[in-house]
Amino acid sequence: MTTQPRHVYRFGVGVTDGSAAMKDLLGGKGANLAEMAAAGLPVPPGFTIATTVCREVTERGGQLPEWLWPDIEAALAEVERTLDARFGDPARPLLVSVRSGAAVSMPGMMDTVLNLGINDAVADGLAKKSGNPRFAWDAYRRFLQMFGDVVMGAPREAFEHALDELKRARGAKSDQDLTEADLKEAVVRFKAIFQDKTGEPFPTEPKEQLRRAILAVFASWQSERAVKYREVQKIRGLIGTAVNVQAMVFGNMGDSSGTGVSFTRNPSTGQKELYGEYLVNAQGEDVVAGIRTPLHIDDLRTRMPAMYDKLVAVSAQLEKHFRNVQDIEFTVQEGKFFMLQTRHGKRTGAAAVKIAVDLVREGLVTEDEAVANLVEPGHIDQLLHPYFADELAYRKAGRVVGKGLNASPGAAVGRVVFSAADAEEWRARGEHVILARIETSPEDVAGMHAAEGVLTSRGGMTSHAAVVARGWGKPCVAGAGEIVIDYKARTLSRGKVVVKEGDWLSLNGTTGEVVLGQEPLREPEIGGDFRAFMQWADKARTLRVRTNADTPHDATVARRFGAEGLGLTRTEHMFFEESRILAVREMILASDQAGRRKALAKLLPMQRGDFAGIFRAMDGFPVTVRLLDPPLHEFLPHEPKQQQEVAKELGVSFEVLHARVEALREANPMLGHRGCRLGITHPEITEMQARALFEAACDVAKEGVKVLPELMVPLVGNVTELAHQTKIVRRVAEEVFADKGLRVKHHIGTMIETPRAALCADEIAGEAEFFSFGTNDLTQMTLGFSRDDIASFLPTYIEQGIVEDDPFQTLDQVGVGQLVKMAVAKGRAKRPDLHLGVCGEHGGDPRSIHFCAKVGLDYVSCSPYRVPVARLAAAQAAIKARGSVKEKAGES
Amino acid sequence: MTTQPRHVYRFGVGVTDGSAAMKDLLGGKGANLAEMAAAGLPVPPGFTIATTVCREVTERGGQLPEWLWPDIEAALAEVERTLDARFGDPARPLLVSVRSGAAVSMPGMMDTVLNLGINDAVADGLAKKSGNPRFAWDAYRRFLQMFGDVVMGAPREAFEHALDELKRARGAKSDQDLTEADLKEAVVRFKAIFQDKTGEPFPTEPKEQLRRAILAVFASWQSERAVKYREVQKIRGLIGTAVNVQAMVFGNMGDSSGTGVSFTRNPSTGQKELYGEYLVNAQGEDVVAGIRTPLHIDDLRTRMPAMYDKLVAVSAQLEKHFRNVQDIEFTVQEGKFFMLQTRHGKRTGAAAVKIAVDLVREGLVTEDEAVANLVEPGHIDQLLHPYFADELAYRKAGRVVGKGLNASPGAAVGRVVFSAADAEEWRARGEHVILARIETSPEDVAGMHAAEGVLTSRGGMTSHAAVVARGWGKPCVAGAGEIVIDYKARTLSRGKVVVKEGDWLSLNGTTGEVVLGQEPLREPEIGGDFRAFMQWADKARTLRVRTNADTPHDATVARRFGAEGLGLTRTEHMFFEESRILAVREMILASDQAGRRKALAKLLPMQRGDFAGIFRAMDGFPVTVRLLDPPLHEFLPHEPKQQQEVAKELGVSFEVLHARVEALREANPMLGHRGCRLGITHPEITEMQARALFEAACDVAKEGVKVLPELMVPLVGNVTELAHQTKIVRRVAEEVFADKGLRVKHHIGTMIETPRAALCADEIAGEAEFFSFGTNDLTQMTLGFSRDDIASFLPTYIEQGIVEDDPFQTLDQVGVGQLVKMAVAKGRAKRPDLHLGVCGEHGGDPRSIHFCAKVGLDYVSCSPYRVPVARLAAAQAAIKARGSVKEKAGES
Repeated sequence: MTTQPRHVYRFGVGVTDGSAAMKDLLGGKGANLAEMAAAGLPVPPGFTIATTVCREVTERGGQLPEWLWPDIEAALAEVERTLDARFGDPARPLLVSVRSGAAVSMPGMMDTVLNLGINDAVADGLAKKSGNPRFAWDAYRRFLQMFGDVVMGAPREAFEHALDELKRARGAKSDQDLTEADLKEAVVRFKAIFQDKTGEPFPTEPKEQLRRAILAVFASWQSERAVKYREVQKIRGLIGTAVNVQAMVFGNMGDSSGTGVSFTRNPSTGQKELYGEYLVNAQGEDVVAGIRTPLHIDDLRTRMPAMYDKLVAVSAQLEKHFRNVQDIEFTVQEGKFFMLQTRHGKRTGAAAVKIAVDLVREGLVTEDEAVANLVEPGHIDQLLHPYFADELAYRKAGRVVGKGLNASPGAAVGRVVFSAADAEEWRARGEHVILARIETSPEDVAGMHAAEGVLTSRGGMTSHAAVVARGWGKPCVAGAGEIVIDYKARTLSRGKVVVKEGDWLSLNGTTGEVVLGQEPLREPEIGGDFRAFMQWADKARTLRVRTNADTPHDATVARRFGAEGLGLTRTEHMFFEESRILAVREMILASDQAGRRKALAKLLPMQRGDFAGIFRAMDGFPVTVRLLDPPLHEFLPHEPKQQQEVAKELGVSFEVLHARVEALREANPMLGHRGCRLGITHPEITEMQARALFEAACDVAKEGVKVLPELMVPLVGNVTELAHQTKIVRRVAEEVFADKGLRVKHHIGTMIETPRAALCADEIAGEAEFFSFGTNDLTQMTLGFSRDDIASFLPTYIEQGIVEDDPFQTLDQVGVGQLVKMAVAKGRAKRPDLHLGVCGEHGGDPRSIHFCAKVGLDYVSCSPYRVPVARLAAAQAAIKARGSVKEKAGES
Repeated sequence: MTTQPRHVYRFGVGVTDGSAAMKDLLGGKGANLAEMAAAGLPVPPGFTIATTVCREVTERGGQLPEWLWPDIEAALAEVERTLDARFGDPARPLLVSVRSGAAVSMPGMMDTVLNLGINDAVADGLAKKSGNPRFAWDAYRRFLQMFGDVVMGAPREAFEHALDELKRARGAKSDQDLTEADLKEAVVRFKAIFQDKTGEPFPTEPKEQLRRAILAVFASWQSERAVKYREVQKIRGLIGTAVNVQAMVFGNMGDSSGTGVSFTRNPSTGQKELYGEYLVNAQGEDVVAGIRTPLHIDDLRTRMPAMYDKLVAVSAQLEKHFRNVQDIEFTVQEGKFFMLQTRHGKRTGAAAVKIAVDLVREGLVTEDEAVANLVEPGHIDQLLHPYFADELAYRKAGRVVGKGLNASPGAAVGRVVFSAADAEEWRARGEHVILARIETSPEDVAGMHAAEGVLTSRGGMTSHAAVVARGWGKPCVAGAGEIVIDYKARTLSRGKVVVKEGDWLSLNGTTGEVVLGQEPLREPEIGGDFRAFMQWADKARTLRVRTNADTPHDATVARRFGAEGLGLTRTEHMFFEESRILAVREMILASDQAGRRKALAKLLPMQRGDFAGIFRAMDGFPVTVRLLDPPLHEFLPHEPKQQQEVAKELGVSFEVLHARVEALREANPMLGHRGCRLGITHPEITEMQARALFEAACDVAKEGVKVLPELMVPLVGNVTELAHQTKIVRRVAEEVFADKGLRVKHHIGTMIETPRAALCADEIAGEAEFFSFGTNDLTQMTLGFSRDDIASFLPTYIEQGIVEDDPFQTLDQVGVGQLVKMAVAKGRAKRPDLHLGVCGEHGGDPRSIHFCAKVGLDYVSCSPYRVPVARLAAAQAAIKARGSVKEKAGES
């Protein structure tokens, strides 16, 4: 009829113009309605005015374009024909709903006007036709209220106040007690309010109502709230909102009517069974409002068997169509079944895996689809940790005493203690404890291990507490800044709530909540479905997944979770064990190189033993060992009392030890004397570590174990630093091989963790056989954010939309990512077979893993408990890159 | 004769093939000899074998290429013809010297073999011809020793030992006491040693001697020492060394012979007078060796008037030719004058400026040449600070007790104190003091100001002490790590040397030396020459020079030094004054925004007053003001005792204050809650500062002063941060303009000091009208070097050649410079008129200024006392870019 681009898209009128793929143009709601209608599902007919019109309206200063109205009238006429009803016709009344809907769900825009098309005559007609005058006048009353408030901007309270007055006058307790006559009176009063507040009479002409409602929806796109919301949420690039006009159906037209919501499968267990609730003679909002108690969906089977069968059939059809479990809203009007909405159903981790496996077995989806669309990385995380049986309960009961960062997932329950020593002691006598500290340091590690979970009031997602806890899969809430921890008083408090040593506390590491009391725990179950699913993920992915682990035990755990090597072994973690720390301290206090060598000689066999254990655990897989990284002062005690003790143990004076601690003190340890800077000023440390590594490799190789050592130099910024260290390492390797009578294939590489290293990656690749991006430090330096100090401003930043994410959780692709891409390009240009990985905390973050896959890294490395999550994320990235599976549609 | 490229370049044989421009091919020495010969100066004839041959020799495994020898013989024949002498001919003996010489002077290579071409017969002939047998046999003896040691690798000690034995046997006290017969005996013994140590007889054939000597020079290029030296000094891209073969002239052939060194003008004062010394009947090495006391060059005027006249004429000719003052070596052989070497003469700052101005006035050089080639930035620096009258004296006397970084130039003398309070107190009673601190903090500022100079044992070139001292032009030695400062004992010590409170100490901020006792000082003089010279520099340059200053006084000083605006006003420095710090602390301790606003209201008039004073001082020039930058904890005391006092002053409990200090404590303050992060979490601070700035601008503009305010947001990494702050600033500006009834033109921009800001400079330029590169912080973050902590490894790094320079002194062009270039390109692409400057410490470093000019910045900003240095460096960069002045030639 017209050569203009289409602006009005019909659905359910015999023909449907749109589909789920047209979200940008039709908004999420409109696209899904079209999809369902096209699939032959019983959707009330209607049409969607495209998002492009929204821009036209804005450009016209809030006027509808003149060419639009004929299209709307034409579409409306088709709805009338389809339903054999007419807009504004009292004999065969057609009422419609008008709803907004952009491509992204967006609070702040006009939501919904129901029952549009009503006036006195139509209300009368509706009363007659339905045989239910009360319903008709109630519908009219509701429309006046909604139209006045939402479309015309009359204050909502004015209507509510009037209704309350009426109820009081009639002695009515609830809306239900109002009679037809009362509702008629309400309509009269509402009209008066409308006139009073808007300065014009209520528009009785249905098409005028429609025109105004459509304009109001489009105008709401530019409302202050909506603009602000988009700004804060950084929602950009949207054209505007669409407007959905749809015929009304009524679940409140008597006992053969009703409304309900249901999942097509149980979202908690994944069982193939309907899971939902419904109400007879009610509107959708009544189910949600909770005034009447809805019935379980199974009940429908006996009450309305035909409807139940219809629901079962529709559910199957929806699952087949959307290739996923659906969360639906339906309405039955006088025995006729209508679908009002469908979307993918949210589900627990256990359900997600079961559903994915079942749908593949039922032939509904392919393995790749199941991996790409049916399980989220967060689901896998849930599966690996205990969780609280009922989160809603403790929230409702107001037992949440504070919230910190969800630093390490899972749930933990125990009695609070405030020192690492107490944690060990209490644990030793059989108590379960929660260790609460302002922040943790390497000295606390044993106590952290003894605790069920760790709480800190300071520090971020990559603080010491967070990193260590994640490594063990132990729940941790970090940086709960509102909680005041008082070591002296042995209490933690927020305002007047005080928790004393020994009181029970529950930590939800998945949400960051700190909960008073002893919450019931539920243990996760890992079954055959999980293993099958993860096999499909492994088949799909190209990115390798390694783990960060420092002990044979952690390495073994990680291998069980599917790790394909160690991407980061922090050798310094081996230094903190009680038997070793003395030798380390002796080295630090030595006045010359000879003294340091003597102390290092004591450490050599211990470190060699550690490496040997790790090689055995990782038989056949590469093991990347990082040379000593932290500044030396981390190995010395900082409190005078401890200094006194340690001085005694070491046989030096307190003054000597104290002076050494002071001399090593740094203004910004993060940017201080650490990493390869240590190895350059103290080459004997590098020598000892290289010797321990190669000796262990040779010894274990002789046992028949396949060792693949990779030695990694930290904090390099200049190729000269790397060359200095590799020269030592290569020399020691040759010495050891000569000594042991065999050679072990190995690689020497570097961390890329200073911006300069990324900028000079071409030069550095001349010396390095591999790069491991230390994205924690790279983020700290690129952004200038100390991860230990961001708690004071990051919450404000996220709240105000200055940044979208904690950059230590999700890689900052624009800034840090730019450096990573640059380093990849420069490094590979210099050395085409350069091996590339990430060993920062980002290696376990799904969005960051997608980035790693996109820029062509070879592997990611993450803490053991994140390995399955990373495997899935890597698989999803690979499937997305191949484009072999349609992206999830049907979300709204 | 041959179509091959030339390999042997003749000089002084009637024809000269080379010139000073051919340094790469002929080495520095050869090129200068050619230049002098070509200019008609009396240079003993000879030839240079090009550096390209060095590579040929290496490629041939240490053999001379077969085609070379004929060219050498041909060139040698020309020398013979020129001198009417013959190589190996006892009747007309020709002796030559053989010397190495690469394009860059390089210790570690073979240096010199003199008297080559001698044997028994030639020695006899020489004895007869010279009538001085002792001279002849001494020459022979010397050659045997040099040739054996340097060319053949016989141990030097063997010869020395034999000579000592001979002297002992003859009862001779010095070489001078040995007779002709003794020297003949020495020759016999040396030959035996030669045979013994090298396994072959001494080669008597002169051409064989020459061949071996030439090969030895080329071989020395690959000697371990030379390779190591090039590695450490990062000397790259050189082809090899050249070999210079030159006829010998002898200053030791009697009383009509002699040798000397001289400057063509006085290098200390710049006076136009010969300045040097000479010896009669001596060889060049004797002048240097210091066995005989040389005579002042003026003495030559009476002793050898012809020679003196010759020297004067040659000097004038050299100055005219090289367009610079020369430092020459000459030899007179039996009344005949020879030039052996010339190079540009090193000079003091005062001399440099006088010479530059004189040479322009004498018409020898253009103004641009004078600016580009005759004065170094370091010379200007010297001119602005007092200096020690005699540095050599205190070094010789062993009074240097330690060495730190030359953090702020100049010399200071005073009695040592160890606290800022003592410095103020002692100064108040008229003492001159040196303030010695482990490190300084903002609390020490008043005491630093009271001191003559500041010494710290910790911290780098951009530590607090260094930055503040440079700002005042006050001498500072920073990070003197070997010196132990004990506050309790009130001593500083190194080993057993202990300096107590009140002892005299001298600081050389130009060299970094810490000197015991009270050194005599000399004040610099700035005269008309200086002003004239700086005007030429200003004419030449395109880069503007601004200054970093925080007070009207400093701004005035900087304008006197030629600053063209303020590039950085650190508003926080205004917060430390006693009257203000209380209000600042009140703000920090306020529990809510209302409380903070109340405290800020007290600060507003003070800050407004500061700005007004600065605007007046900078009338007509731009003033860039940076919003509050440091973390808040810098404004609170850290010692419990001080906390107690401050708590009392503020009327809060010690516990409250202490808790606030603890809450604000940061692991890495450098990467913490500072810069715009403060302005975002505390927008009321930004508001107050913007209000103070714009109110002051309006008030002062009304007085008729031309104000050009530029407001700068620090530590931006994301354009959203900048947008947040500019929104506040623009709003406040409009409010103030409305209130004051006038508008003031202004600019709003940002620091580029996080790597992310540089990486996202395009986005940021969307909000910023100017960028000011904060290269201090940019260096810290890009390299991951905390400037306060580098003292523990940077010295090792520089020593081992890991880095060439302290990156806080001289911009790291490869890493940090890459980010600067990227930001310039991205920023200008987005906003073509983006104004660009540098306000880090690098803005006062000549090499960094060249970089700034090259990448197209508009200005540099540096501390007031560096402004003239920066003006010169900027001029030199501009002249170099224009290519209008030949680069300095003639250096060796």
